[in-house]
Amino acid sequence: MKGMNIGIIGFGTVGAGTYEILKTNAALIARRVGMPLNVRRIADLDVVSDRGVVVEPGLLTADAEEVLEDPRVDVVVELVGGLDTAKEFILRAMAQRKHVVTANKALLAECGDELYRAAARHGVNLSFEASVGGGIPIIGALRKGLAANRIQTIMGILNGTSNYILTRMTLEGLPYERVVEEAVKLGFAEDPPTLDVDGTDAAHKLVILVSLAYGTPVPFGEVYRAGIDRLTPDDVRFAGEFGYRVKLLAIARELGDRVEARVHPAMIPADHILANVNEAYNAIYLEGDFLGPNLYYGLGAGREPTASAVVSDIMDLARQIRLGRTRPMPPLAHAEEPGTPVRIQPMEDLSTAYYFRFSAVDRPGVLSKISGVLGENRISISSVIQKGREVNGSVPLVMLTHEARESDVNRALSAMEGLDVLTDRTVMIRVEKGVRHGQA
Amino acid sequence: MKGMNIGIIGFGTVGAGTYEILKTNAALIARRVGMPLNVRRIADLDVVSDRGVVVEPGLLTADAEEVLEDPRVDVVVELVGGLDTAKEFILRAMAQRKHVVTANKALLAECGDELYRAAARHGVNLSFEASVGGGIPIIGALRKGLAANRIQTIMGILNGTSNYILTRMTLEGLPYERVVEEAVKLGFAEDPPTLDVDGTDAAHKLVILVSLAYGTPVPFGEVYRAGIDRLTPDDVRFAGEFGYRVKLLAIARELGDRVEARVHPAMIPADHILANVNEAYNAIYLEGDFLGPNLYYGLGAGREPTASAVVSDIMDLARQIRLGRTRPMPPLAHAEEPGTPVRIQPMEDLSTAYYFRFSAVDRPGVLSKISGVLGENRISISSVIQKGREVNGSVPLVMLTHEARESDVNRALSAMEGLDVLTDRTVMIRVEKGVRHGQA
Repeated sequence: MKGMNIGIIGFGTVGAGTYEILKTNAALIARRVGMPLNVRRIADLDVVSDRGVVVEPGLLTADAEEVLEDPRVDVVVELVGGLDTAKEFILRAMAQRKHVVTANKALLAECGDELYRAAARHGVNLSFEASVGGGIPIIGALRKGLAANRIQTIMGILNGTSNYILTRMTLEGLPYERVVEEAVKLGFAEDPPTLDVDGTDAAHKLVILVSLAYGTPVPFGEVYRAGIDRLTPDDVRFAGEFGYRVKLLAIARELGDRVEARVHPAMIPADHILANVNEAYNAIYLEGDFLGPNLYYGLGAGREPTASAVVSDIMDLARQIRLGRTRPMPPLAHAEEPGTPVRIQPMEDLSTAYYFRFSAVDRPGVLSKISGVLGENRISISSVIQKGREVNGSVPLVMLTHEARESDVNRALSAMEGLDVLTDRTVMIRVEKGVRHGQA
Repeated sequence: MKGMNIGIIGFGTVGAGTYEILKTNAALIARRVGMPLNVRRIADLDVVSDRGVVVEPGLLTADAEEVLEDPRVDVVVELVGGLDTAKEFILRAMAQRKHVVTANKALLAECGDELYRAAARHGVNLSFEASVGGGIPIIGALRKGLAANRIQTIMGILNGTSNYILTRMTLEGLPYERVVEEAVKLGFAEDPPTLDVDGTDAAHKLVILVSLAYGTPVPFGEVYRAGIDRLTPDDVRFAGEFGYRVKLLAIARELGDRVEARVHPAMIPADHILANVNEAYNAIYLEGDFLGPNLYYGLGAGREPTASAVVSDIMDLARQIRLGRTRPMPPLAHAEEPGTPVRIQPMEDLSTAYYFRFSAVDRPGVLSKISGVLGENRISISSVIQKGREVNGSVPLVMLTHEARESDVNRALSAMEGLDVLTDRTVMIRVEKGVRHGQA
């Protein structure tokens, strides 16, 4: 067999890593798939920068057309990122009957439906293992290993930058701004790291996981997201005193005909296996109806882990072709084309426990006023911490609630805005109790 | 499409779970693979016991021939377990051009080569996701998601019974015998749980993982194994004082042209992600050359998790057939047939750190005598704990060493047998330093 021919569009970090793996492990890869994988063309606007890898002469071009129009190219690897241009490249590659491998989570989350339908129409593969969790093969697990199960719960730490920031805030008690500043300086975070810390990146990835779990498009705009930029070391410390850790979680839950899908800072029990996923690591925790709890852990970003996932997609495609496959695997791993979008539960219908930190004046009757408003809104308190010295005339009053409704919480917090005993905005963090299992 | 027809041989725990999933999630499964999966025949010597699932009339037979000879059956699911009979069933099924799905780790570890070659000869699939880690899709990850990598390290907690016992010894300070007795009574362990606690079961699973990682047979007899039955609560406690946890680990490492492959109790840093895998949970930790560290965690045994893996194999096969595939996926996911067996490094060549607990008489000069023998054998000490009161005329003297050679350790321990200052057999536990990553 003459081998499979690859064209890469986008020769940045992940593109260079992909080329490096294909070269370094060429013999191993050929032995595993049964034929050589040949990079035929690499397009990038920048054809001069050193990417730390020696590129064979004649491969690089500044013109993506030379990849898209090259009749030798069997599979186009889209690593440009972003929405419009990347989408155009992918649709044009498909129209040329080329298979597509991409790591583009934003594009899949926001325009996935269009791409999935185009792949089906043209009879080509669209693979995206690298789009979620970097080197963690979570897409493959959902497509295959877990396929016998209804997926009941997904809880993911899907953004490494946020997790790195939260880890340092937790372990070193540092304020958000200081950690971000250092992370940017060290090259661990973009400047500014907006899409990482505001929950957008994690929400993109959650949409992809939920689409795969249910085989339907997920309306990205309906996925609630909140970021970590307003968390303080105080909240992280109080969480610890209650036996919790704060993580930026991407959460999905099957609720009959609706699905919960949301991204926000959340407190989870310190003995939950996700609570100990630290630094830039990612992890995806799942519960299936027969499988029970499962966790996947690894490096969620970076040149080599992400490229490892890109190459695994290329290899899978090569194997399928070698085994005589005549039809492509559907992108969402469901036999039919994606149907009606899944219904996302409105955020105000959420039921969960809550953490509140009130900045209150230090005077008798404050606790009674606050708990009065909560009670009027059907929110019952499970624990209270009141301590610490007065700063600028106020003390922190910290509470955990029993399960309450988000709409009631919103109503209570609005009502409290009028209370003269509060000196600052109230901080609210949702609490995920989770299941205890296997953790000491 | 008329669907794929399944015959099950062995209707015990996992067999009943498989049938239950295929029935309960039939609609979901058909939607995912694009055709119905029909159980046509189930063979078991016991056709009367209640397995907690309603079986359609006419499916059950006491005669395995009725599965093997049924021309309608496309795939035979072997869940008999054990070696000879199971092997005969599998080879006969393959000879009839039926695909095979099995959970039989003992058979794969001890006779895998013969089965892999038979599958290739007959042009059928041999799938075994359920053989390692129960519901954890680690086989699929090695075959596909991690395929771009050289696998440099595998460290697994692969036996749930041992891990349950060690967890209770660690958290409750209980002696081995007492935990085993309770586990047997509660149905968590077999009576006696020999193959679980002596390392055999974990070694079977390790052999399968290593075979997949390198695409070659692994001589099971050369894999070193030691069990947990001689561990005491004292050793577990001392491990904790040094900042370690004791786990039954299955370890493989690539060493150029040789592979380390061994199963034994090992101390790992308390902040290693494997150290916090408790109770009956399994986890597989891997390092790939591009991927970095990865962990897979879940329930490693039990009716439903194991059956979830069996059904995922059946579904994958159904999909492949539906996509027009004409050749089977090779069992070891390498294009060639398995070649020369991988070379296992002899245990005496191992280099690692060690924990020793000496039972010594409480008198001056003892430490100097012991450290003298260690020094003569090129073993250097990194920490010592000497404390606790005298019991029967002896005190525990506990040491951690720097990296040393197993052959030197064996020589030193033999030499010490002659020392009059020791009152009992010396306890030795190997220490895996591991990489620190992502753990607080």
